[in-house]
Amino acid sequence: MLLYLSTWTEIEQYLKRSRTIVVPIGSNEQHGPTGLLGTDWLCPEIIAREAEKAADILVAPTFNIGMAQHHLAFPGTISLRPSTFIAAIGDWIRSLAVHGFEKILFLNGHGGNIASIEAAFSEVYAEASFAKRHAGFALKLCNWWDLPGVGELAREQFPSGHGAHATPSEIAITQWALPETIKSAEYSPQIAPSGPIREALDFRARYKDGRMGSDPNQASQEKGGALVKLAAKSLVQEVDAFSREAMPA
Amino acid sequence: MLLYLSTWTEIEQYLKRSRTIVVPIGSNEQHGPTGLLGTDWLCPEIIAREAEKAADILVAPTFNIGMAQHHLAFPGTISLRPSTFIAAIGDWIRSLAVHGFEKILFLNGHGGNIASIEAAFSEVYAEASFAKRHAGFALKLCNWWDLPGVGELAREQFPSGHGAHATPSEIAITQWALPETIKSAEYSPQIAPSGPIREALDFRARYKDGRMGSDPNQASQEKGGALVKLAAKSLVQEVDAFSREAMPA
Amino acid sequence: MLLYLSTWTEIEQYLKRSRTIVVPIGSNEQHGPTGLLGTDWLCPEIIAREAEKAADILVAPTFNIGMAQHHLAFPGTISLRPSTFIAAIGDWIRSLAVHGFEKILFLNGHGGNIASIEAAFSEVYAEASFAKRHAGFALKLCNWWDLPGVGELAREQFPSGHGAHATPSEIAITQWALPETIKSAEYSPQIAPSGPIREALDFRARYKDGRMGSDPNQASQEKGGALVKLAAKSLVQEVDAFSREAMPA
Amino acid sequence: MLLYLSTWTEIEQYLKRSRTIVVPIGSNEQHGPTGLLGTDWLCPEIIAREAEKAADILVAPTFNIGMAQHHLAFPGTISLRPSTFIAAIGDWIRSLAVHGFEKILFLNGHGGNIASIEAAFSEVYAEASFAKRHAGFALKLCNWWDLPGVGELAREQFPSGHGAHATPSEIAITQWALPETIKSAEYSPQIAPSGPIREALDFRARYKDGRMGSDPNQASQEKGGALVKLAAKSLVQEVDAFSREAMPA
Amino acid sequence: MLLYLSTWTEIEQYLKRSRTIVVPIGSNEQHGPTGLLGTDWLCPEIIAREAEKAADILVAPTFNIGMAQHHLAFPGTISLRPSTFIAAIGDWIRSLAVHGFEKILFLNGHGGNIASIEAAFSEVYAEASFAKRHAGFALKLCNWWDLPGVGELAREQFPSGHGAHATPSEIAITQWALPETIKSAEYSPQIAPSGPIREALDFRARYKDGRMGSDPNQASQEKGGALVKLAAKSLVQEVDAFSREAMPA
Amino acid sequence: MLLYLSTWTEIEQYLKRSRTIVVPIGSNEQHGPTGLLGTDWLCPEIIAREAEKAADILVAPTFNIGMAQHHLAFPGTISLRPSTFIAAIGDWIRSLAVHGFEKILFLNGHGGNIASIEAAFSEVYAEASFAKRHAGFALKLCNWWDLPGVGELAREQFPSGHGAHATPSEIAITQWALPETIKSAEYSPQIAPSGPIREALDFRARYKDGRMGSDPNQASQEKGGALVKLAAKSLVQEVDAFSREAMPA
Repeated sequence: MLLYLSTWTEIEQYLKRSRTIVVPIGSNEQHGPTGLLGTDWLCPEIIAREAEKAADILVAPTFNIGMAQHHLAFPGTISLRPSTFIAAIGDWIRSLAVHGFEKILFLNGHGGNIASIEAAFSEVYAEASFAKRHAGFALKLCNWWDLPGVGELAREQFPSGHGAHATPSEIAITQWALPETIKSAEYSPQIAPSGPIREALDFRARYKDGRMGSDPNQASQEKGGALVKLAAKSLVQEVDAFSREAMPA
Repeated sequence: MLLYLSTWTEIEQYLKRSRTIVVPIGSNEQHGPTGLLGTDWLCPEIIAREAEKAADILVAPTFNIGMAQHHLAFPGTISLRPSTFIAAIGDWIRSLAVHGFEKILFLNGHGGNIASIEAAFSEVYAEASFAKRHAGFALKLCNWWDLPGVGELAREQFPSGHGAHATPSEIAITQWALPETIKSAEYSPQIAPSGPIREALDFRARYKDGRMGSDPNQASQEKGGALVKLAAKSLVQEVDAFSREAMPA
Repeated sequence: MLLYLSTWTEIEQYLKRSRTIVVPIGSNEQHGPTGLLGTDWLCPEIIAREAEKAADILVAPTFNIGMAQHHLAFPGTISLRPSTFIAAIGDWIRSLAVHGFEKILFLNGHGGNIASIEAAFSEVYAEASFAKRHAGFALKLCNWWDLPGVGELAREQFPSGHGAHATPSEIAITQWALPETIKSAEYSPQIAPSGPIREALDFRARYKDGRMGSDPNQASQEKGGALVKLAAKSLVQEVDAFSREAMPA
Repeated sequence: MLLYLSTWTEIEQYLKRSRTIVVPIGSNEQHGPTGLLGTDWLCPEIIAREAEKAADILVAPTFNIGMAQHHLAFPGTISLRPSTFIAAIGDWIRSLAVHGFEKILFLNGHGGNIASIEAAFSEVYAEASFAKRHAGFALKLCNWWDLPGVGELAREQFPSGHGAHATPSEIAITQWALPETIKSAEYSPQIAPSGPIREALDFRARYKDGRMGSDPNQASQEKGGALVKLAAKSLVQEVDAFSREAMPA
Repeated sequence: MLLYLSTWTEIEQYLKRSRTIVVPIGSNEQHGPTGLLGTDWLCPEIIAREAEKAADILVAPTFNIGMAQHHLAFPGTISLRPSTFIAAIGDWIRSLAVHGFEKILFLNGHGGNIASIEAAFSEVYAEASFAKRHAGFALKLCNWWDLPGVGELAREQFPSGHGAHATPSEIAITQWALPETIKSAEYSPQIAPSGPIREALDFRARYKDGRMGSDPNQASQEKGGALVKLAAKSLVQEVDAFSREAMPA
Repeated sequence: MLLYLSTWTEIEQYLKRSRTIVVPIGSNEQHGPTGLLGTDWLCPEIIAREAEKAADILVAPTFNIGMAQHHLAFPGTISLRPSTFIAAIGDWIRSLAVHGFEKILFLNGHGGNIASIEAAFSEVYAEASFAKRHAGFALKLCNWWDLPGVGELAREQFPSGHGAHATPSEIAITQWALPETIKSAEYSPQIAPSGPIREALDFRARYKDGRMGSDPNQASQEKGGALVKLAAKSLVQEVDAFSREAMPA
């Protein structure tokens, strides 16, 4: 069930049978010579919608701009500062809590978001009376590549050249879902360099075409489809387990 | 040209021929018994994408959560506080300015956003050195219903019962673009009451099914299509005029 | 009744008969070659004090600095950033609410304030427990030129050359109230140019003497007096209606 | 010269002969059974305007709401939180600095403002590039009762019962300037108790009629006039010395 | 009792017999040619620990970075902006209040901290429901040099050349507690100049070696020991009086 | 070299030979029945000071309060909200950068700090002109347990019952450095339960004595000493490598 295509009365009904919602969250940032700028928000959106077809899961609109400061030297990247990102995640959570949602699972598509999302959770928890009003209220972060089995499949599909940014796995997912957007480009070296992440100008100097440790041309629609199917299945299980989580007496 | 389906190198090319970008911006909030929660961000997204088919316009990802505080007593609404919304709009603008965008047009789908968007523009302009770095830099807010001719067409299509929220015109647009999501519901009175907007509980007490002054069942796909075609055409002209706007010597 | 000339015990008494207060709010900014920098806060102050003579209305001190970022390239302008302005309006409201005020009407004298004042209202409403503590609590923005009949009178007095900034109507009001401050200056063209509002340097480049679309030398004390009398009368009615506004059951 | 009664061109002229401005700053808060709520912003305004009659001093509009949190349990008090107050003072300073003001003297009328004003100065100084842009730029806080000779005169006028809040000296000043607002009330004990300042409810419990250590009925118009004359004279000297202050080479 | 060397169960026990805690707070900033950068946080830490040996006082970890903006032109200084400092003090207070502490005494070692600490107290008190939750809750600032008798002793020890920064008294205290860190350096003039405090570059221009009005070579371990002994004794009395302070009925 | 025991002239000298500084950063929070509340800031302080004895490393004062929101239901815990923590880390960094430090390594002792520290780094990097002013400027986070070899040693020392909070390794370190503070307590089960981290009340309900997955009584001074020695040695190497890191041309 997609929240944005529902009416408020349909959500009112949903809340009678479940207090759980999935929020796809990502980033809009450069993904190397062939990756779409939207890759990091498209992947969790694609996986969440695939899961939603198979189970009674409610999917929020996609939080499509995240913390991509280190990619800002590449055109098209849009980033929130961590402080803004934390405030915005907090407002999404507070809005959903008003309606009675008690288990909010963020399905994340961008490694650079993790710190700010976790900080946002603590910021919300720290509100004076939050816990008291919402016993049983819990927030959870799932990176799609950490869903049970998914990392293993990606490593099997791409034993070398998977890398850390503009990876063949994420690009395969967008290729499977949006085949009309497949781009081709040459690049060298075949496997991009690895190293630390500092600020934006340093990032561009180190990673000249935007890739980190990856060889994205290994991506294929078929591999992407396999990843999506597995991730969606695992997500359904995670959502189910999270829905049943309870605070000890 | 859709930014999120492009690579960074494609945006780099675009910036050689244009410094203008369109950002669809809306809200995710209740739209009465039949309207989609996503109505207010879907409408500008639909219009911008229609415009983009006809002209060399770059369209940013959709800013899909806005200032909907007064709708929070209806399930499914997600709102940013004005302070968060202003900060986030500022970060989008700063990111785009880093890449060299000089004319940023926000195509807005929600009346409740107007105050915060305008405040955000002033907040950015107020930054100490912003103007100096970006002579010619300008921000513009266009509500889709204020695009030349569009308001007139809507008043002609819906001479009574257009109203101010959950209007037949906005619902017609989503019906045209997403016919599989058309909902039907009965409501009374046929034309919802009008009045002031205060806080969320007051809003729900005054406008029990979420409509303000509207009779959304007057919407039709055909009317929606006519609105989108006209709005897209007007948007192309607005973008063109804005691109050519210059500060007097 | 002027709050700042009262003792706390007098306000305590007032609160037994009314829960309504009027806050004049404006801006301190350039008003063309002849207008006072204080014009935008003087006008609502003058009107509110005139109304207060005729009815049992409580008038707060004047909020004299607003959002005037676009006028900052003209000496003497003082502006709050929207974020500061929103925070300050919020603190005024919270202070007044502590004492039991339930209807706070901001009588505004500056168009550039509207967005931030409305955003401030939503920011206050969004506070977690605000509505619950104050059922019936409401905030209202009235621009003096939008008070019933006032715009019509101004259009009648100044059929051409009224314009949008440094208007003859606002200058007439200060001339009536503060005749010793009447300034004279020549300017050309007689009617200033019109156009968009961008940031401060752009504003000064477009509107070289600070006027927008106006011919302020049409102002006269007599016209100012008529405007004040009518506005004060309308304000009394607005305050009365607002005081009686109630949330539907 | 009163800024708010000047045009921008008059300020432009003033800046050619001086870079100094005086900002009266106070608070709107309870002042015991007989004191006006506006006492703390009226006093510096009265003194600054008296000084302005005798010397070429530019006086800004009065900053009339300050940090009065501890008085909020008395009706009519309006307070900014320190964080808001600091932000607003900063925006006033930044606005004035844009025009070329280099010496900004805040003439303060409320002891509770001192901490936040000083914190605001440091906040502005801490801005990355502020000092570099404004060599010679300086901010100064003067409490009117600390102006040379003024404290001595007050102690001579009121050897006992001067106290710390709702003092006869501040009330005498408003009596001199606004004789039509003189209030009378009985209170006991004649000299109010003294003690610490904690939060608002504690304050009201300790100081039941709002006075701290004072016997305000000792005030007289004549004593107020003597205080204003002396304070105005001292202010002129302070402004002159501050204008000539320079950073060592 | 030192909190950081205790377990949570020991603090739980302490709270059964006392609701008071002492927080040493200072600054890390230049202290002239011979003073340690840590002087201002070491002094209150040394005094609090001395007091803790003699009485059942709980001492929090030391808040070691304060508001030292004006010292930033000297290497090694670390400063919080006032806004950050206020937020951080607030979080310390809120954390301690959660556990049931009701009397929090900040023992301060830096004059530049006073404004921000007092502003922080008001910021906490201003929180909507704070007072209601914590009747009897109070915050107190003690500068160590203002503890009963301490200022008198320092003036007796250093009748001339005590000054206002890098004073012989504070340096004597660190010499007594940390004799292995005693530094020696020549400087001239023997007594440093005095004057106003503006921003950091101005400060360094006025006070070239960092001293203000002081002759720190007058410090001795013996004088430091006498100061610590007296200050510790006075602190015990202050803590005791503060613990017994109650809001009037 | 310990910054807080140095004079500003000594730091000025140090900066001529190195632009690198180590900041120990931790948290003050419950550490189970036997662990000190200061454990998480003591561990990095102990390791950094051990390293400083063996190499020319500059160690900043310890940042002793971190993000411990989830431990707040246990007395003695003091936590910054993530937003405050991020602001404070930013101010430390900006202060150090003013003096010319270009490589700032935070040696962290608390897992709960990681998200906020990383967010703080991005927040600083995102400042408009930061990168331009400081080419080569870089920030690095090292958790002491991730220093080369340290995790392996801890796993070898404590093959079972190491756990995630109140671990025997961290407690062993404080036992080695502060043997006079060794506490003893009984607890059961011997190995504490594991599970997710939610908000503070949930945490206390799940982990009743504060331990997560650990058996801290396995700690010994000897094991602590071995950990410190190895960690200090690894830290020296990390600092050296970081000092030599350069942005590619």
